[in-house]
Amino acid sequence: MATVRERTRGAGRRDWSTWPAYDAAVTGFRGWWYPVAWASTITRRPTAVVLGDTKIMLMRDGDAVRALHDRCPHRGIPLSMGRQQFPGTLSCAYHGWTFDLSSGRLSAVLTDGPESRICGKVSVTTYPVEQRLGLVWLYLPRVDGDPDEVPHPIDEQLPEELVGTDFVVGGRIDDRAGNWRFAVENGYDEGHAKYLHRTALWRLFKTMPAWNVTHIERRGRWIYRVQDEVHWSGDFPGVGTWTNYRWWKQKPPQQTFNIGNTGAAKRVDPVIAAQAFPGFASLSVPGVLRIAYPNFIHYEFYVPTGPDSHRYVGLMVNFTRGGWRVPWFWAKYLGGIRWLFHGQFSGQDAAMVEATDAPPERLYRPDVSLTEWRKLCEETEAARSASAPEGAS
Amino acid sequence: MATVRERTRGAGRRDWSTWPAYDAAVTGFRGWWYPVAWASTITRRPTAVVLGDTKIMLMRDGDAVRALHDRCPHRGIPLSMGRQQFPGTLSCAYHGWTFDLSSGRLSAVLTDGPESRICGKVSVTTYPVEQRLGLVWLYLPRVDGDPDEVPHPIDEQLPEELVGTDFVVGGRIDDRAGNWRFAVENGYDEGHAKYLHRTALWRLFKTMPAWNVTHIERRGRWIYRVQDEVHWSGDFPGVGTWTNYRWWKQKPPQQTFNIGNTGAAKRVDPVIAAQAFPGFASLSVPGVLRIAYPNFIHYEFYVPTGPDSHRYVGLMVNFTRGGWRVPWFWAKYLGGIRWLFHGQFSGQDAAMVEATDAPPERLYRPDVSLTEWRKLCEETEAARSASAPEGAS
Amino acid sequence: MATVRERTRGAGRRDWSTWPAYDAAVTGFRGWWYPVAWASTITRRPTAVVLGDTKIMLMRDGDAVRALHDRCPHRGIPLSMGRQQFPGTLSCAYHGWTFDLSSGRLSAVLTDGPESRICGKVSVTTYPVEQRLGLVWLYLPRVDGDPDEVPHPIDEQLPEELVGTDFVVGGRIDDRAGNWRFAVENGYDEGHAKYLHRTALWRLFKTMPAWNVTHIERRGRWIYRVQDEVHWSGDFPGVGTWTNYRWWKQKPPQQTFNIGNTGAAKRVDPVIAAQAFPGFASLSVPGVLRIAYPNFIHYEFYVPTGPDSHRYVGLMVNFTRGGWRVPWFWAKYLGGIRWLFHGQFSGQDAAMVEATDAPPERLYRPDVSLTEWRKLCEETEAARSASAPEGAS
Repeated sequence: MATVRERTRGAGRRDWSTWPAYDAAVTGFRGWWYPVAWASTITRRPTAVVLGDTKIMLMRDGDAVRALHDRCPHRGIPLSMGRQQFPGTLSCAYHGWTFDLSSGRLSAVLTDGPESRICGKVSVTTYPVEQRLGLVWLYLPRVDGDPDEVPHPIDEQLPEELVGTDFVVGGRIDDRAGNWRFAVENGYDEGHAKYLHRTALWRLFKTMPAWNVTHIERRGRWIYRVQDEVHWSGDFPGVGTWTNYRWWKQKPPQQTFNIGNTGAAKRVDPVIAAQAFPGFASLSVPGVLRIAYPNFIHYEFYVPTGPDSHRYVGLMVNFTRGGWRVPWFWAKYLGGIRWLFHGQFSGQDAAMVEATDAPPERLYRPDVSLTEWRKLCEETEAARSASAPEGAS
Repeated sequence: MATVRERTRGAGRRDWSTWPAYDAAVTGFRGWWYPVAWASTITRRPTAVVLGDTKIMLMRDGDAVRALHDRCPHRGIPLSMGRQQFPGTLSCAYHGWTFDLSSGRLSAVLTDGPESRICGKVSVTTYPVEQRLGLVWLYLPRVDGDPDEVPHPIDEQLPEELVGTDFVVGGRIDDRAGNWRFAVENGYDEGHAKYLHRTALWRLFKTMPAWNVTHIERRGRWIYRVQDEVHWSGDFPGVGTWTNYRWWKQKPPQQTFNIGNTGAAKRVDPVIAAQAFPGFASLSVPGVLRIAYPNFIHYEFYVPTGPDSHRYVGLMVNFTRGGWRVPWFWAKYLGGIRWLFHGQFSGQDAAMVEATDAPPERLYRPDVSLTEWRKLCEETEAARSASAPEGAS
Repeated sequence: MATVRERTRGAGRRDWSTWPAYDAAVTGFRGWWYPVAWASTITRRPTAVVLGDTKIMLMRDGDAVRALHDRCPHRGIPLSMGRQQFPGTLSCAYHGWTFDLSSGRLSAVLTDGPESRICGKVSVTTYPVEQRLGLVWLYLPRVDGDPDEVPHPIDEQLPEELVGTDFVVGGRIDDRAGNWRFAVENGYDEGHAKYLHRTALWRLFKTMPAWNVTHIERRGRWIYRVQDEVHWSGDFPGVGTWTNYRWWKQKPPQQTFNIGNTGAAKRVDPVIAAQAFPGFASLSVPGVLRIAYPNFIHYEFYVPTGPDSHRYVGLMVNFTRGGWRVPWFWAKYLGGIRWLFHGQFSGQDAAMVEATDAPPERLYRPDVSLTEWRKLCEETEAARSASAPEGAS
């Protein structure tokens, strides 16, 4: 029977005080760009989204997309209940307070006449918006409503290979249960894929490893999971033999590999090859996962939408330069990837993220991927706090 | 870009500390009569209602309606789960504790035999009840269970024109989301009708003003919204022209008017004319709205049922002296008013009341209707606190 | 009108501070065996149950049933989401942490390879399990995870007549609303049966008493309700006559009786007769009710599953020695008892238990059954605290 000493030794971490900035980031890190919606879904009819703990209204204004705090300062009605009565504006549903979409300024109050003295004296916080990869990106400022904060260019935050290259994108946005940190950790987690996803249809014909030995390398703003050993089966003392081999599955490769997760590739896409990723899974703040396969890259963005929920944005990117490869990619994406990978496979993750309840937690060897991620968050936040705030334009 | 000074100046009220009694009245003011149900729905089978933060059981006892605190003192079972076993009493469903409906006294315990020593030693709080306008009215005492409190006569609280006159009533009772104060403020709010209700079918054929200039007059226990100017359209600088004109709608009148909200009437009902209301919308504590039209008056009572809910009681009263006018009123009410006015029109209000989230708030010129209402509440409560409590009979 | 003095005198108990251990036992007493599931429903596929405030996973392991704390220490995933990959173990769904079912020790981590250094250093709390009466019983330890605590033998806790005798059992398990204490008190409550259950189909043909005079006797670990007088009707002053007589119901017996609740029996089962119960309703800690009828005994176990819920386990036991009596019992049970007694009758109780809201409470004479039960709990807990803890094996 376990002694008290053994139980204490095995108790693991009671809390996350080792990573204070991460521990505090219940509703996400501020001062970053987040993808919140497909650009094609944002129209002149307002859309309500939540980013971190902030309610935001998105609306199309010509080619631009505008983002305003989703609360009329008059009586607290969500602006997203309103509609556009005049170009470049949004009128609140209740009393017709009419805000300029680009500045957030109150430009007219339809129920107070043209001489309304309140116009120009009230404004709603606006949020910087960009459109990239077919998505609308919002910048969540470090301090809400600080007029001096200028966001860093979004291209500095996007994965480098997605800036200045040609590609096609397929993807899926889902609102999911569970804190955003559990979602990031699940995505980058070395250990779970080999067990949790053993039954995924996505892996029906390809054997997955039973376990790996990996280490984490940092390069710039990314950390990479680098595979040192790949094991396809094992005899577990006192328990039995464990493997993901099945007679109908492709035999695994003999060498260790660091692109894709079922073996080395015959041919690697030149854009992907040019990145020379040290490992096939990489991660950056504020929660961007990149899984490099030989012919495409899968990205996951985990957007905080509350203490117990997040928005999952999963993208599959193919670096094609047009021509017949584009319809070919779409056929593959819609015919299979969307359902098998972004559907059932990712649904297994969603169930675990929802059920995760930590800390307390008891980490094991493969969880170096988690601890290095948390360390990256701490260092990134510390470096930002140290740098002087950028000046207003 | 907005400077910090502008933002501060535009920040509005952070709280309601200017109106402390009103601020505290989350679940309503005590010491008033409230309409809680249609009298015709109260039978020998108990009905559970909530008034303020109090659960009350209503039950018919011959012509009278009785109201008891809806909690058996024995084990906390709602008395409304019980039934009547003997005339003039109600027996709790669990152990047959039998209470006298008029006094609240425990008169028998069916499971303790005729000699039960507890009879006469326990009682349930009773609440004064009146029946007026086809409704059951409850008096919510200032202090629960104070035997010395005698309610003021209900006729002193009813709108004066409803005491001693003949009339027919049509109406609707709905349980709605949102604090009762948001419901009162919505009802009396000068500004919203012209914008929010612009799409109401009720206004399909009659143009509503675009904005008004009004002031508030107090007369006795009522405050009135008095229209000084009525504007039917306007050119809003930098935004455009706004009006509720439509080619299929009746043209609006040229003069300013203070009865109805779409123009002066050809003929006004003599009872209504005799009131000489200074404005068509009036309001009194504890939340009674009166909208005078030329041929009927619409009343709204907002009954607190919790911090985030209220019971909406909407009445349409026609001062007819019987004869063919009664079926004519009913035909109009059931054929149109009920669906258009007490239905869709009022449903637009319900959506706003539910969505209102104040304070903080940023009031504008037409909100003098709100601030005068809050001031009326403060003064009324202060006057009551100053007067000596009435003696017991 | 009630004076203030009368109201104060009638106020009853504001809280349960008279019974501090009972008052504190919101989620049940610890250090007892509880029935949690039918043994036949526990298979190799894990079942999640809640006992007190503890989540537990049940799983069959050959003939034995195993119970583990339903939380993987790694990341908090419920072990009941996992499955068995190797005999005698359960693997967590997320990362394949594999626990020995009998010891709770981590015996393998499938995603960490055979050399995993964490094996043997982590364990999950296990709970003692027994199978009796076709049910799985769990022991809820006084202190979670204390390796020195050895449970008392379950047979010391079972009703004496169920140890070493032959019988057949029919029963029903329901998850119900309401604190477990309200359920116990409802079950043993002298007063409610005669009023609440007057309309039960179970009593359609047999008159129930109108009220009784009883006292409580303690014998060993049981308290018994002993009937001194049984009254079939009464004239309640100022109210009227009350009885459960109906022309179609069996006439009640003339003598006082203490077995069954509608009258003395012609023939009593010898096992039941041998118990010489002083009263037909008896109760023991931690919430076991026994209602002795002439030919069977009905038991109710109230298993705490949270502050506002419990699991109701109702059993009907017939002390038959096999042969034709067994199918006869089953025919009676399935044809009637299950629906009338364990269904509608017991459903009336469930509604009251859910609606009970005490303290405050105002007890009356028959509630001596409640106060003696609470006193029994206090004395039992005090005696256990006084005795030295049992040593580890």
